[in-house]
Amino acid sequence: MIRFYAPDIEQSPLLPESDSQHCCRVLRMQSGDEIEIVDGRGSLYRCRIINAHSKRTEVEVIERVAMPAVWPCRITVAVAPTKHLDRMEWLVEKLVEIGVDRIVPVRCMRSERKEIKVERLEKIAVSAMKQSLKAVLPAIDEMTPLPRFLETVAPDDRRFVAYCDDWVERRLLAREYKPGDSVSVLIGPEGDFSPEEIHAAIDAAFIPVSLGDNRLRTETAALVACDTIHIINQACKS
Amino acid sequence: MIRFYAPDIEQSPLLPESDSQHCCRVLRMQSGDEIEIVDGRGSLYRCRIINAHSKRTEVEVIERVAMPAVWPCRITVAVAPTKHLDRMEWLVEKLVEIGVDRIVPVRCMRSERKEIKVERLEKIAVSAMKQSLKAVLPAIDEMTPLPRFLETVAPDDRRFVAYCDDWVERRLLAREYKPGDSVSVLIGPEGDFSPEEIHAAIDAAFIPVSLGDNRLRTETAALVACDTIHIINQACKS
Repeated sequence: MIRFYAPDIEQSPLLPESDSQHCCRVLRMQSGDEIEIVDGRGSLYRCRIINAHSKRTEVEVIERVAMPAVWPCRITVAVAPTKHLDRMEWLVEKLVEIGVDRIVPVRCMRSERKEIKVERLEKIAVSAMKQSLKAVLPAIDEMTPLPRFLETVAPDDRRFVAYCDDWVERRLLAREYKPGDSVSVLIGPEGDFSPEEIHAAIDAAFIPVSLGDNRLRTETAALVACDTIHIINQACKS
Repeated sequence: MIRFYAPDIEQSPLLPESDSQHCCRVLRMQSGDEIEIVDGRGSLYRCRIINAHSKRTEVEVIERVAMPAVWPCRITVAVAPTKHLDRMEWLVEKLVEIGVDRIVPVRCMRSERKEIKVERLEKIAVSAMKQSLKAVLPAIDEMTPLPRFLETVAPDDRRFVAYCDDWVERRLLAREYKPGDSVSVLIGPEGDFSPEEIHAAIDAAFIPVSLGDNRLRTETAALVACDTIHIINQACKS
């Protein structure tokens, strides 16, 4: 069944315009039809269409289902957006499919991309959430200068910085991460972090890690880091 | 240093046309300059340019270096190409970055894409190999009907089929895969395998596995499967 997204469903039983249009114009659903709606915060609502309308479709909630969490911890991926926007958009889609709680675009000294439109990334995230049958939409922060990001990390997060250059000793993320730990992973820009940035991250309790002996593009590194958390959790599931 | 690709360097010390052009026209390298060339079979050659030419640049080999293997087993990913070609091209790039030995585009009963141009995928693979500083180019098969692929799997490969539907019992790939094992992973089309195909795979000793509780797109599933092999090998590295 196709899922719709209505973040305010609990307060107002309406499909927003884009989903109303998809529901009524594209899928030609009608009053009386049943649909599934997620709120992006972990709940799914089985609903019946009361008034099919291409801009504001009214529904009644038949049942609210709290969806079980798919992964056992909070995962934050902070990443310097790539020069080519399509690589960053692709990354957001894949992170949402694989599972992430918060995405932070960070601005670094050597970032080639200094600005990014969060609305566009949010649209991609909503689409990936629906497509992968999730009920949780990750938070996507505005572009955040690295020093400010370092101040906003949740106090109990394990902190890792994936870093290419080898003047800092690094261990494998796959071995340093412990199952169940909430985590913030920081991935640098295409030109890598500056030494000052690495020192600032280490001062903020980030542990330098490697993702293996492969040299990965920025967006691949961010994806592999997030996937590593999931796979170690799966491998050690009791 | 930028790497060039010359599969026949051992027999003929020349850069092929596209790499000659990049070397001499784009990078404006000249006779006497040193470059690195990989042969796609695991060797790197330090070379000196003898005759810079935009179509056939001659070099002399200074040193041949056998590059160490980055992963400890052979990894084959067999995947039904996606309807949208850009998703398949993206997958090839990412598989090469993360590390794969053989990519087999398989044609399934419910495949929306029945044909694929291997030359285009090979170009992407060469580019990703250079970019990620590898010396090994994975083999990319022609589009292969699933029954024929099942007959060509290396005899000592562990075999896994990642499958969405749940009428077959599945275990997590992250727990079934044993470090060091060479492996063939089979990923179905967007419409999933048919029951007959699943039975044929099981008859060919493929073990049905899950990649977790997330519903992943075809190309994401193929990437996550390959990445799982790498991460389990890293986590258990002695």
